[in-house]
Amino acid sequence: LDAEDPARVAEVLEPLHPADIADLFEQIGGSRLRALLAIWTSDEIGAVLSELDEGLREDVIDALPQAVLADAVRDLDSDDVVDLVEDLDAAQQTAILDVLEAPDRVAVEQSLQYPEYSAGRLMQRELVKAPEHWTVGETIDHIRAEDDLPEQFYHVILIDPRMRPTGYVTLGRIMGAHRDVPLQDLTEDSFRKIPVTQPESEVAYAFNQYHLISAPVVDENERLVGVITIDDAMVVLDEEHNEDILRLAGVGDESVSDSTWEITRQRFPWLGVNLATAIIASLVISLFEEVLTQVVALAVLMPIVASMGGNAGTQSLTVAVRAIATKDLTGSNAWRVLRREVTASLLNGAVFAVIMGAVSLVWFGTPVLAGLIAVAMVINLGVAGFAGLLIPLALDKLKIDPALASGTFVTTVTDVVGFFVFLGLASMILL
Amino acid sequence: LDAEDPARVAEVLEPLHPADIADLFEQIGGSRLRALLAIWTSDEIGAVLSELDEGLREDVIDALPQAVLADAVRDLDSDDVVDLVEDLDAAQQTAILDVLEAPDRVAVEQSLQYPEYSAGRLMQRELVKAPEHWTVGETIDHIRAEDDLPEQFYHVILIDPRMRPTGYVTLGRIMGAHRDVPLQDLTEDSFRKIPVTQPESEVAYAFNQYHLISAPVVDENERLVGVITIDDAMVVLDEEHNEDILRLAGVGDESVSDSTWEITRQRFPWLGVNLATAIIASLVISLFEEVLTQVVALAVLMPIVASMGGNAGTQSLTVAVRAIATKDLTGSNAWRVLRREVTASLLNGAVFAVIMGAVSLVWFGTPVLAGLIAVAMVINLGVAGFAGLLIPLALDKLKIDPALASGTFVTTVTDVVGFFVFLGLASMILL
Repeated sequence: LDAEDPARVAEVLEPLHPADIADLFEQIGGSRLRALLAIWTSDEIGAVLSELDEGLREDVIDALPQAVLADAVRDLDSDDVVDLVEDLDAAQQTAILDVLEAPDRVAVEQSLQYPEYSAGRLMQRELVKAPEHWTVGETIDHIRAEDDLPEQFYHVILIDPRMRPTGYVTLGRIMGAHRDVPLQDLTEDSFRKIPVTQPESEVAYAFNQYHLISAPVVDENERLVGVITIDDAMVVLDEEHNEDILRLAGVGDESVSDSTWEITRQRFPWLGVNLATAIIASLVISLFEEVLTQVVALAVLMPIVASMGGNAGTQSLTVAVRAIATKDLTGSNAWRVLRREVTASLLNGAVFAVIMGAVSLVWFGTPVLAGLIAVAMVINLGVAGFAGLLIPLALDKLKIDPALASGTFVTTVTDVVGFFVFLGLASMILL
Repeated sequence: LDAEDPARVAEVLEPLHPADIADLFEQIGGSRLRALLAIWTSDEIGAVLSELDEGLREDVIDALPQAVLADAVRDLDSDDVVDLVEDLDAAQQTAILDVLEAPDRVAVEQSLQYPEYSAGRLMQRELVKAPEHWTVGETIDHIRAEDDLPEQFYHVILIDPRMRPTGYVTLGRIMGAHRDVPLQDLTEDSFRKIPVTQPESEVAYAFNQYHLISAPVVDENERLVGVITIDDAMVVLDEEHNEDILRLAGVGDESVSDSTWEITRQRFPWLGVNLATAIIASLVISLFEEVLTQVVALAVLMPIVASMGGNAGTQSLTVAVRAIATKDLTGSNAWRVLRREVTASLLNGAVFAVIMGAVSLVWFGTPVLAGLIAVAMVINLGVAGFAGLLIPLALDKLKIDPALASGTFVTTVTDVVGFFVFLGLASMILL
């Protein structure tokens, strides 16, 4: 796909979904993308913009002529406009808001007042509501008379005279009922209100846990201000997971379209933390220089003890981090889970102690060495299970994201304990 | 919550959502849960069963009286029944299928014919369809006359005379249009058919990528056989992510309600693989016993080189695994991403080489040692970036899940290279 032949470019991009065009843009990147944008216009460009990675989005907005951008933005729902402008710098933001019609601009500006990553930023203002005393017939007539229906809606929200939502009815139920049935008789049990300041991660959790399709958003006075639909919640869930995975690996919020410089900078801090903890582990080793000089086999074997501990610790902490995120691990079952983790780690430790003891015996022919590594292995794996559960729980209590910091702490513990126990026992016995 | 007082148990559980009751059951577990089930019955038990972890579900089904189970299952949609029975042993499966009415049982049995984790298992058979020549009025009359509407539906699917879906219309559009408008004029661009054998992970990807709310499922003759809704796709997306995170950490499909024995067994294989790779790294170290005996500082510093390489490799591979899963990393941009990964790793390697060189100089006062660790650090981090990207890509080409196996391969490479370069250079220079 080269930016030489406009007709060919249009031919390739035309049948694609905006999300696929955005993915394509992310793969092209850089100057080739700017050349392509110069020759390609489409009324889908607004939808493509909403799908783009944040980093690239700013570049594309800068590259687009003002008139094209204006048309693109006017077609979007309010939640998509908010999503589009919230990460832009002030100049770009103003440029986009200026092209909106007054009521739309006010709606977007109000949404931007809510904290980042809150339900208020995620909701759309376009919704269909009905007074709670209406019948099916009145509702259908109202919807038919309405010119400006939301692109997508799945429920009619019932409101009381003070604009507080009191229930909702699916469109399927309305269509299946006779005209004189009151809406009140058709409301769904799944009805849940979402406070406008609720973090979007909790919104996504609620949609997933309770199989919601859409949910009304209310302000501090319980008044209806918007609606969140499951497709937006699914995007948040996907992003949250992505963030968790990357954080567990000590990577920031990175994407394939980021520049070399950005990824270097993003990965630097965690490599720095890792260097500090590796130096701590080395300091532990240096305590035992004497025994290492005398028995060089210890230097050969010691990484095995640390590595097995690190691996077992990572297993425990990953399960713990997931269980905390899905609210399956709480104070009430922590004790039971801890006993289970430590027991499982000790059991595996015992098996691998036997295996590694046998390997060492064959390798070095020294029963003492085989015994040493076996004992160190059991202890370090037990500690791994213990630390792998308690460190994420403690970080969560301290309101630090356990996905972000657990790995470093746990592997520091297993490195230090692994080297200390193995070399310490060796000094006591061999020196 | 103790199983002593039935009234109190009912009082606590009554207001909870079935998903929350399921979470509570998972936290209670074991014999206390059986005691609780003996005194608590509710017509929500079917919904609770669908939400339970697979492991626990079998226990609960065994604990329930046959009559209670029968009532519970009859209330569920066909996709929920399939989800419920697919992992049960044959005796339990037959017991549940026998309580269903004949047409429902046939529907469930047909779904069970499709491969596990395919669209056919995920879809529900309850749907609303209309011949493609119908008008809005005909459709509304048909829906009103229908006794057995699906619990949830969001689209009316248009079919041709051979039962092949040709488009769909949202209920919102139908309600907003006049009775004489043909459905054909209201169809949505987002329409996508899903083959019944498509893996559920790809179904979830399509829903997320294209913001689908529901999509018709077709058999090999393109005939309509069911419909998948976004709430089910969201559950799959959640499970897939969970699996990815756990696999990256070398943990199987584990949950907090698993027994000690199960988690011991699940974690054993990856600890075994890790032991094998750790032994390989130790074999590399043992090649250099001579220089280690003479310069014990090498034994102190060598884990730092390996640890930094492992960390940088994990960062690269995690980003690569995510990008492969989201189809952001493909053959066409692999070369560009590889250059970026290696450059970023070398840049960070250079900075940490300087830092670690300085630390070693202060610590041991030997410029040669400082130079050695600096060079080894740059090389190992460069290799980490290279292996961290290429290994997941290669595994993906070989149809092996990169999340499952990348970590072990990459850390083996960085351990081996780290020890080999550092100790090898040391032997060449110091001996």
